[in-house]
Amino acid sequence: MMHQASNPAFADEVRQSFAKQSIMGLIGGELTRVEPGIVEISLPYRADLTQQDGYVHAGIVTTIADSACGYAAYSLMPPESEVLAVEFKVNLLRPAKGELFVARAEVIKPGRTLTVVRADVFATSGAGEPQLVATMQGTMMRLPRR
Amino acid sequence: MMHQASNPAFADEVRQSFAKQSIMGLIGGELTRVEPGIVEISLPYRADLTQQDGYVHAGIVTTIADSACGYAAYSLMPPESEVLAVEFKVNLLRPAKGELFVARAEVIKPGRTLTVVRADVFATSGAGEPQLVATMQGTMMRLPRR
Amino acid sequence: MMHQASNPAFADEVRQSFAKQSIMGLIGGELTRVEPGIVEISLPYRADLTQQDGYVHAGIVTTIADSACGYAAYSLMPPESEVLAVEFKVNLLRPAKGELFVARAEVIKPGRTLTVVRADVFATSGAGEPQLVATMQGTMMRLPRR
Amino acid sequence: MMHQASNPAFADEVRQSFAKQSIMGLIGGELTRVEPGIVEISLPYRADLTQQDGYVHAGIVTTIADSACGYAAYSLMPPESEVLAVEFKVNLLRPAKGELFVARAEVIKPGRTLTVVRADVFATSGAGEPQLVATMQGTMMRLPRR
Repeated sequence: MMHQASNPAFADEVRQSFAKQSIMGLIGGELTRVEPGIVEISLPYRADLTQQDGYVHAGIVTTIADSACGYAAYSLMPPESEVLAVEFKVNLLRPAKGELFVARAEVIKPGRTLTVVRADVFATSGAGEPQLVATMQGTMMRLPRR
Repeated sequence: MMHQASNPAFADEVRQSFAKQSIMGLIGGELTRVEPGIVEISLPYRADLTQQDGYVHAGIVTTIADSACGYAAYSLMPPESEVLAVEFKVNLLRPAKGELFVARAEVIKPGRTLTVVRADVFATSGAGEPQLVATMQGTMMRLPRR
Repeated sequence: MMHQASNPAFADEVRQSFAKQSIMGLIGGELTRVEPGIVEISLPYRADLTQQDGYVHAGIVTTIADSACGYAAYSLMPPESEVLAVEFKVNLLRPAKGELFVARAEVIKPGRTLTVVRADVFATSGAGEPQLVATMQGTMMRLPRR
Repeated sequence: MMHQASNPAFADEVRQSFAKQSIMGLIGGELTRVEPGIVEISLPYRADLTQQDGYVHAGIVTTIADSACGYAAYSLMPPESEVLAVEFKVNLLRPAKGELFVARAEVIKPGRTLTVVRADVFATSGAGEPQLVATMQGTMMRLPRR
């Protein structure tokens, strides 16, 4: 799917907003791709992000997927917008084990008020193929900037 | 709904497993209620848990809701079980602002393999009434302990 | 939860709109309760509503749950509104067998644009207790009437 | 994604099971594609399938999407399996208007017990391009045949 940005400053605005997400500093998430309708956030494995079995907690996988979805939606919104998540659904496909996790979000259906986005989260270990560990389908809402 | 635990050691096992979730140490989540089919996790507000507007990130709200759901399901499982999240859906009802967040999970339908659980996340500020900020509906799976 | 209707004609408008849902005539769905924020739709079992095992198809269970959610949301909207479903999630808890199915929807969080609703679908057989066969969590949207 | 069927009779078994879904006779759904991991169900528009605005009801869109997901999962299961839907989530992207609706399901992650499937539902009017009207993400479960 090809997307077209209506805000010429979208990439800068996504980066500025991401820089304000202090949770990303805490967990180590990095914004690694910003294109119209597509955003990626990467997260290196850390032992303090894990659940009882040593895998990255599903809520942290969700954290990077949700931010990626929000910014993918935001990248297609007109200037003077704000974005918030209305809802999301996550299927956890495999244990989140690996060295690097990448959430790749892409807009499925942009809208004036609501935008539907999907994100796949891949785990990579060493030289292995990325494995799909989770997939999110969610709804993001545009608000006029306050 | 009344639930009956089939594992007499369920509360100790939930506490021991929760203690291994190192993510809870990182974000400051605490296990504050463990009963058959009902589990609560509390999270005090911290500035480093927030998204761009200063509210607690939806992924962190999800983190405490998901763990509460998992342990609520686990509390009803027979001994020698492990639990993992299959999927969850979260509706974000209000911005997650407040001083204390409590995720309260309750089993809707226990099952031999799959257990369906709901969690409500409430935010409290000062002496105000708790506000419902998010609600999760999810599926947890029992595995025999390895 | 107590809800207050802002449209004094809400019950009549729900009934009039329901009467236009020709799918309800096809499957035999009936509107059996309309209160502020709460709507029930009932559906007697029929063999031509079933999937391969003779249970009512999950999509038909969803049909009555979705309409119940939509009208529960609508019942709290101001005059001159229209309602549409944005998204819903359904957990199927037991096979949909029984003689009568009742979808009971209740608004969790009303909003100016988006309203979050939950519906439980119960099956009854003979003099037995109603069994919860499915639960829906969904988002309904208000549009100004065209 | 390439999928490999483990049951050489998968296509016949899908067709036989579909033929038993009496709901498909009622609404006019037809099985129009069966490949390993991919199933399509088509539904011509009929006025008696609609909601209050004359669009096909979201529950009927869900009915064909859910069956397509179930059979896509089933097509990859070993012989002597049965399939049931655990849960699904549907985002409704546009009003379901058109002359023909096609639900195209594809397995995202097959599993021994649980299989995650996605379905897109497209509407076509006259010679126009198919429009994506809904997308489903769901979990299907394998049971040994009784």
